[in-house]
Amino acid sequence: MMNALLLEEKNIAPRLVNLETPTAQQGEVVVSLNAASLNHRDVWIMKGKYPGIELPLILGSDGVGILDGEAVIIQPGNNWGADERFQGSSYQILGLPKNGTFAEQVVVGEQQIYRKPPHLSMEQAAALPLAGLTAYRVLFSRCKAKAGEKILVTGAGGGVALFCIQFALKVGLEVYVTSGSEHKIERVLDLGITGAVNYKTDDWSSVLKKQAGGFDIVIDGAGGAGLQNLVKLCNPGGRIGIYGATSGVVPNFSPQPIFWKQLSILGSTMGSDKDFGEMLDFVTEHQIVPIVDSVFLLEEGAKAFKRMEEGQQFGKIVLKIA
Amino acid sequence: MMNALLLEEKNIAPRLVNLETPTAQQGEVVVSLNAASLNHRDVWIMKGKYPGIELPLILGSDGVGILDGEAVIIQPGNNWGADERFQGSSYQILGLPKNGTFAEQVVVGEQQIYRKPPHLSMEQAAALPLAGLTAYRVLFSRCKAKAGEKILVTGAGGGVALFCIQFALKVGLEVYVTSGSEHKIERVLDLGITGAVNYKTDDWSSVLKKQAGGFDIVIDGAGGAGLQNLVKLCNPGGRIGIYGATSGVVPNFSPQPIFWKQLSILGSTMGSDKDFGEMLDFVTEHQIVPIVDSVFLLEEGAKAFKRMEEGQQFGKIVLKIA
Repeated sequence: MMNALLLEEKNIAPRLVNLETPTAQQGEVVVSLNAASLNHRDVWIMKGKYPGIELPLILGSDGVGILDGEAVIIQPGNNWGADERFQGSSYQILGLPKNGTFAEQVVVGEQQIYRKPPHLSMEQAAALPLAGLTAYRVLFSRCKAKAGEKILVTGAGGGVALFCIQFALKVGLEVYVTSGSEHKIERVLDLGITGAVNYKTDDWSSVLKKQAGGFDIVIDGAGGAGLQNLVKLCNPGGRIGIYGATSGVVPNFSPQPIFWKQLSILGSTMGSDKDFGEMLDFVTEHQIVPIVDSVFLLEEGAKAFKRMEEGQQFGKIVLKIA
Repeated sequence: MMNALLLEEKNIAPRLVNLETPTAQQGEVVVSLNAASLNHRDVWIMKGKYPGIELPLILGSDGVGILDGEAVIIQPGNNWGADERFQGSSYQILGLPKNGTFAEQVVVGEQQIYRKPPHLSMEQAAALPLAGLTAYRVLFSRCKAKAGEKILVTGAGGGVALFCIQFALKVGLEVYVTSGSEHKIERVLDLGITGAVNYKTDDWSSVLKKQAGGFDIVIDGAGGAGLQNLVKLCNPGGRIGIYGATSGVVPNFSPQPIFWKQLSILGSTMGSDKDFGEMLDFVTEHQIVPIVDSVFLLEEGAKAFKRMEEGQQFGKIVLKIA
């Protein structure tokens, strides 16, 4: 038997239950989990905002644990497919439709198992998989970020955004951010970035323009009306990496600056096994430590979900399992 | 003295006048022109739709002629700059602000002179520069088109679109087009493309979806509401090359399929000297012959402009000068 956070009903936080321990099929392994972390995906699934949700379900895409006596970290994506450029039609993310990591044990494919970066604690490593992978792919595989470039990362408190900031700083980019929270701006300035603006102020984009001149790279997970400003803030030849659209559609999007400034708008989601392996090597080489907002016990799952929903976190929300 | 089409007043077609022959400064040459061709740019400048227009002005970006006894073709762009990814701030296109090719002689930079592809007549070669360069860069330098891919080219009657179609066919892509004219669709089907739809029909995008399944590459010069349909028609990993926005802004542009399908939206305008040289080599190697809609004498300039404004042309409108 094992403890797990089980989502039984839409819009009600998963609760701790005792379940049969899962068994592995051919090509699969059972990992004993030490820690997991939450992503917005988990909250959106809880709220029923994904297609194909069948309940009950154990949520969770991020997990680290022990397999055959070794500390391992799980690639949350499975069956990416043969083409590095995009995930194939049988691609799945852990935690929907298959049971995820908010449990004492999880079944994953053998190929999803990687060695945990040795410099990280279990709780720190649990913060890494989905957000670190998404950040690595959009920043390096897609936008080809390199030293000396100016980068703007929007929504600086989020998991993916924070990894983009940490990764970009290590490589030697000049980093600017936007955030809707003065508190988060203070925190992120401590990381060594060059400039920050609050996107809730009217003139945020002209303030940024004055601060930075223009950007070679913009990383955005919001979309919405702000995207048109991001286009304006790009230098000629600039790249805009898009990994989400929490603010929805862009009203009156103008293609004119896209072609005249030779911009590239590069969509990205999750990442291939190659991306995941490279991300772990990068984090290990640069001794990057994920920013953990808070650690909850598995039985405090509802509190962890509440923290995520409130959006006040700075860094990842971790579940300590063992 | 020389004959030239001089734009003296906004919204009035340039008229034939006799002017002093121009003289070259250091690093420049005087080309005796045999033929030129019209671009939408010339009509838009005539209508006053560009910034910085000072009249009187000789329009024209495309020209072929004789220099030192050799047949030469002129790169319409000058001072691209050091970065292949984008044109620098001192980049200029022939015909604004400097006098262009609708004249018996034109002054250009030495570095704008290239050998005319030998298999082309003067009139055919005159059709090539601006549109061929724009097509080559968006298709190959930006979208990396390659054999076996499915491509959709919108607005199939235009100069850039037709070169994209001809180039893509030669490389072995499977080509589909949209056009607003049944007449142009008939003409373009003769080139060997696989499918075509009239974008004035309500269900054009679902018809295309049924015909082709989806596209690896889309080349678009229109923007507007249609762009959202083009995003939907893209296969995962697809690239949308944008070289214009004649239909203006996109209402309610959704970033969601951009990141989920890992799409790339790649803006492109004109092309570097490297692009121009490669384009001429490509046209020579594949013995590509530009499609010429009609040939007018220089003194028939007003008629040529009228033909361009009416939008009924299929291929390039050429001026025979000598």
